[in-house]
Amino acid sequence: MEPNTSNMQQQQPSTCLEITMEVHRVVPPPHKSTIQKLKTRLKETFFPDDPLRQFKGQPTRKKWILAAQYIFPILQWGPNYSLKLFKSDIVSGLTIASLAIPQGISYAKLAGLPPIVGLYSSFVPPLVYAVLGSSRDLAVGPVSIASLILGSMLRQEVSPINDPVLFLQLAFTTTFFAGFFQASLGFLRLGFIIDFLSKATLIGFMAGAAIIVSLQQLKSLLGITHFTKQMGLVPVLSSVFHNIKEWSWQTILMGFCFLVFLLMARHVSMRRPKLFWVSAGAPLVSVIISTLLVFAFKAQHHGIGIIGKLQEGLNPPSWNMLQFHGSHLGLSIKTGLVTGIISLTEGIAVGRTFAALKDYKVDGNKEMMAIGLMNMVGSSTSCYVTTGAFSRSAVNHNAGAKTAVSNIVMSITVMVTLLFLMPLFQYTPNVVLGAIIVSAVVGLIDIPAAYQIWKIDKFDFIVTLCAFFGVIFISVQHGLAIAVGISIFKILLQITRPKTVMLGNIPGTDIYRDLHHYKESMKIPGFLILSVEAPINFANSTYLNERMLRWIEEYEAQEDLKKPSSLRFVILEMSAVSAIDTSGIALFNELKRAIEKKGAELVLVNPLGEVMEKLQKSDEAGDFMRPDCLFLTVGEAVTMLSATIKGQSSNHVV
Amino acid sequence: MEPNTSNMQQQQPSTCLEITMEVHRVVPPPHKSTIQKLKTRLKETFFPDDPLRQFKGQPTRKKWILAAQYIFPILQWGPNYSLKLFKSDIVSGLTIASLAIPQGISYAKLAGLPPIVGLYSSFVPPLVYAVLGSSRDLAVGPVSIASLILGSMLRQEVSPINDPVLFLQLAFTTTFFAGFFQASLGFLRLGFIIDFLSKATLIGFMAGAAIIVSLQQLKSLLGITHFTKQMGLVPVLSSVFHNIKEWSWQTILMGFCFLVFLLMARHVSMRRPKLFWVSAGAPLVSVIISTLLVFAFKAQHHGIGIIGKLQEGLNPPSWNMLQFHGSHLGLSIKTGLVTGIISLTEGIAVGRTFAALKDYKVDGNKEMMAIGLMNMVGSSTSCYVTTGAFSRSAVNHNAGAKTAVSNIVMSITVMVTLLFLMPLFQYTPNVVLGAIIVSAVVGLIDIPAAYQIWKIDKFDFIVTLCAFFGVIFISVQHGLAIAVGISIFKILLQITRPKTVMLGNIPGTDIYRDLHHYKESMKIPGFLILSVEAPINFANSTYLNERMLRWIEEYEAQEDLKKPSSLRFVILEMSAVSAIDTSGIALFNELKRAIEKKGAELVLVNPLGEVMEKLQKSDEAGDFMRPDCLFLTVGEAVTMLSATIKGQSSNHVV
Repeated sequence: MEPNTSNMQQQQPSTCLEITMEVHRVVPPPHKSTIQKLKTRLKETFFPDDPLRQFKGQPTRKKWILAAQYIFPILQWGPNYSLKLFKSDIVSGLTIASLAIPQGISYAKLAGLPPIVGLYSSFVPPLVYAVLGSSRDLAVGPVSIASLILGSMLRQEVSPINDPVLFLQLAFTTTFFAGFFQASLGFLRLGFIIDFLSKATLIGFMAGAAIIVSLQQLKSLLGITHFTKQMGLVPVLSSVFHNIKEWSWQTILMGFCFLVFLLMARHVSMRRPKLFWVSAGAPLVSVIISTLLVFAFKAQHHGIGIIGKLQEGLNPPSWNMLQFHGSHLGLSIKTGLVTGIISLTEGIAVGRTFAALKDYKVDGNKEMMAIGLMNMVGSSTSCYVTTGAFSRSAVNHNAGAKTAVSNIVMSITVMVTLLFLMPLFQYTPNVVLGAIIVSAVVGLIDIPAAYQIWKIDKFDFIVTLCAFFGVIFISVQHGLAIAVGISIFKILLQITRPKTVMLGNIPGTDIYRDLHHYKESMKIPGFLILSVEAPINFANSTYLNERMLRWIEEYEAQEDLKKPSSLRFVILEMSAVSAIDTSGIALFNELKRAIEKKGAELVLVNPLGEVMEKLQKSDEAGDFMRPDCLFLTVGEAVTMLSATIKGQSSNHVV
Repeated sequence: MEPNTSNMQQQQPSTCLEITMEVHRVVPPPHKSTIQKLKTRLKETFFPDDPLRQFKGQPTRKKWILAAQYIFPILQWGPNYSLKLFKSDIVSGLTIASLAIPQGISYAKLAGLPPIVGLYSSFVPPLVYAVLGSSRDLAVGPVSIASLILGSMLRQEVSPINDPVLFLQLAFTTTFFAGFFQASLGFLRLGFIIDFLSKATLIGFMAGAAIIVSLQQLKSLLGITHFTKQMGLVPVLSSVFHNIKEWSWQTILMGFCFLVFLLMARHVSMRRPKLFWVSAGAPLVSVIISTLLVFAFKAQHHGIGIIGKLQEGLNPPSWNMLQFHGSHLGLSIKTGLVTGIISLTEGIAVGRTFAALKDYKVDGNKEMMAIGLMNMVGSSTSCYVTTGAFSRSAVNHNAGAKTAVSNIVMSITVMVTLLFLMPLFQYTPNVVLGAIIVSAVVGLIDIPAAYQIWKIDKFDFIVTLCAFFGVIFISVQHGLAIAVGISIFKILLQITRPKTVMLGNIPGTDIYRDLHHYKESMKIPGFLILSVEAPINFANSTYLNERMLRWIEEYEAQEDLKKPSSLRFVILEMSAVSAIDTSGIALFNELKRAIEKKGAELVLVNPLGEVMEKLQKSDEAGDFMRPDCLFLTVGEAVTMLSATIKGQSSNHVV
């Protein structure tokens, strides 16, 4: 960003003080009032996507239509819906239904809820999402991690076995709060909160959660009846090996066979995405075959646990079960917050991934409101926390889903199941449900991604490890909290300890770059050129002060050998200082004084708009605004100031 | 930072594709192993001042001496101590003693402790500090704000009137924890934690605390006997006006006279720093005169409250009073943490201020250990929390203190008082102590500084207001917590919403600057040049993705009117991106794909060392490292790429 200065450099050798070159003045940015600035800032913070820009300049009628379409995206694509699209949607809808039914039953059991609640949750929420959601690929329903968290957190206070009604009430209340938090985040445009769950955190967290979920399945896979209620790796394994007498070989054999079958089906579909239906259909096939086996051999009398009788009929209303008072309210709110945010993260990430693949847009805040409302409606129709599941959405996408109608098809299929097919599940063995869960969560362990993180950023990898080990050894929510805490701590550390870099001139040019990075760059005698690479604020101004004084001392110590006090100018390149506060401004005043005591001068280069403005306001004496202390580029500063030095020394000789 | 490109620009009009200009390659930084990087990072984080550099290359004997001097700074200046220095120190020592005695008694009462504890605390801690501390001007003793916080927090659980022994035990335990936290922060080199108390926070907090402290003095200034135990503005004022019958006119008259006298003395010294002894001596003079008046007129029988009989003798040991168990342990730890950090902030700030005035250095982490050890020793010798007080240190400095010997002189004076002069204080009226406190804390309200903050940074001013109103309406510790929370929230917000700026060319040069800031700068057709002004990480990569796509859309919308899809290159100027993590790297991959879908190309300019390295590691295909996608300056990028466009279009014509 330097000027065309070939003529300047030719002039340098002359001792004449008046130089005729054109220097580019640093000007303050155009004036803006505080209100205007606040407005810009608020807009950039809360409306960076400028959601209302399509409304601008439209007639009133059109505005109403746009608003309705904004709230109900179904009005956008509904009118153009065609039979061709419906053909695609019906195939994908039936495919995800065949996955949703066994998974729904399994995940409900994982959460400690009656299996039928999992089916209820695959009926109402997809319908709500089809009307409100803007993703075309999201397949809505219960997911493993939210189920795990909900179950493990509520179980801390209430036992689902001893007190099933209270547990169910708490689960619905939690679902309500989860939905409420999700919708509020979207409505208040605070969606960026989920960004604090970094990719590194999520990869570690998911892998840990997958292991915890799989460990829980050892109960049904081994046929153990007395199983620990805790979640951690240690208590579960000790419980498994202390109850070795309860292991049932029939169950183990059956579980092993179906697990191998499911994992192989998964492997086939991973290898050939066209064969998506293999892994999509495998769970339902497993359920049917295993149920038939149990029915045929009366295996329930030979140590194989079965689901048992299930109620028929659609979702009963559950708003009377929501509890907004009592001693467990705090627990419901906390659990709602954690499950809400976790399931929101999954839903939004899934939506964004497939939107990017098909090149359409998903509005994060609008999606949050859709998912939130879906859960609030769900909580009063006997559903627990649902969101867009990654595995099911991938199947939906591969099966050719075109719109949210595939969710409606799935929903209707589940409805038919609820109305007429429930008795068929009576003999379904628990061990198959366990195998279905394990084969589903194995995909959450993403070793290549973890390796990639290790390769790129060691610190991020530590975050991943903390999330992983925190989840498996401490608890799901604490592991998550630790990882998020470390991530934020890293950012704060970057801010308190910003980099300052010494710049040198790349010979033959006007370019100044990091001396350590570009080995050919050279120091310029008499000048110390530093670049500050962060916003300056209260958290780092003390550090920057000390660090810069140390730069100066080190410079002087090196130069000492030659001649005393050769340092004439300290140039601060401020292109990377994007913001400053009052402590930062105070830093410049202190630094100026300290540098002047050492007989040198402080020169600022390219302060950005906001910094420039604040420096000007604080600087009544105009010390920083003097044209010989403020330059637009390092090159111009060095050229001009060297000329001054030479001019002075030649005067001195005269 | 652009090259000397006058020859390039002349070549631009030619249609020849091969350009003979020299382009400066972007190179990765020199290789460093993970361990080396970690070492550098840890050093910059915890040892930015490089405290051990003086030890390098010294013989072993010298190293031992340096180490001893490092731990006990008294060994550094002690051997050269002279009679001349002692003359200065004895004057300043006596001056601060005359201030320390009445203030010690007053502040102890403010904390709800027996008055004599204030004198004990002015005896032992200054001696400890004289040996360990590195500031020459710090005058050590109890201070108003720490006394207020200690008193108000402990009073939440224990009453100093009903249960004085327990209260005293808790105060000493709190002092121990405060010292322990202070020393630990220094020892673990976590001193930067106090930087999170920004100047804006402190100004608001100090002003609020001064008002709270003054309100508490209404009890003694008005002679009220039934006073509220709460601290807030509302309960105190309501208590004052509900007990209007208890007001004693003798007390009010006496208080008013002495308050006016003290404030005038303060005013004189503020105007003429040479008359520092006026305000320094005024409190002692007030105490003597008022005591004599009470004694002469037997005023204690006419509604004027007096201190009463005080014990003679030096500090009794109190290590047996420290309580490390029991139900109040949590309270002691919490109070210790808050008072420790607050008094540390004051002590360090005072030390740094006077060190900068006299041009010597104070090592923050070493000071923390000195202050911490001083409080730990204090807690076992009947002292409560002490630190370097701003007002007393200013008097010390003005009185000509040269070394920490002035603290020793003060300490000995206090000792003499404790041994022989205690009976004289028996008739000292409480109202004078109240007046002394009010006149001392008035100086904490710094309206000009608050106005300066308002002028420079409106957001910082909001932080100041929050701290101020939080302290006077909620509570001292909550007000502080709110202000710190808002300050950190502001930083996190800056990170989640970094600025992206569109750059334009300043005509006739190779300089590229913000289009909105430098009005003369111009867009270059076919190019969208964006500058990202923050490190890229998980908290902002989603936002940056959306924001940059919106920049591109807006660019296309504007250009649309002329010709379709004229955008050829999106140039990202990365000079201000000082760090990146895996989410940031993922952002570049996504962005590249999205931009290519629009038929344009992504070009990076000047990625810094760390960013360069990580991009290279993640980029197996070498997409970002291609020389036509990576330039050292925007100028070179634009020149080279325009040549490419022209070359292509001329080929097209052929």
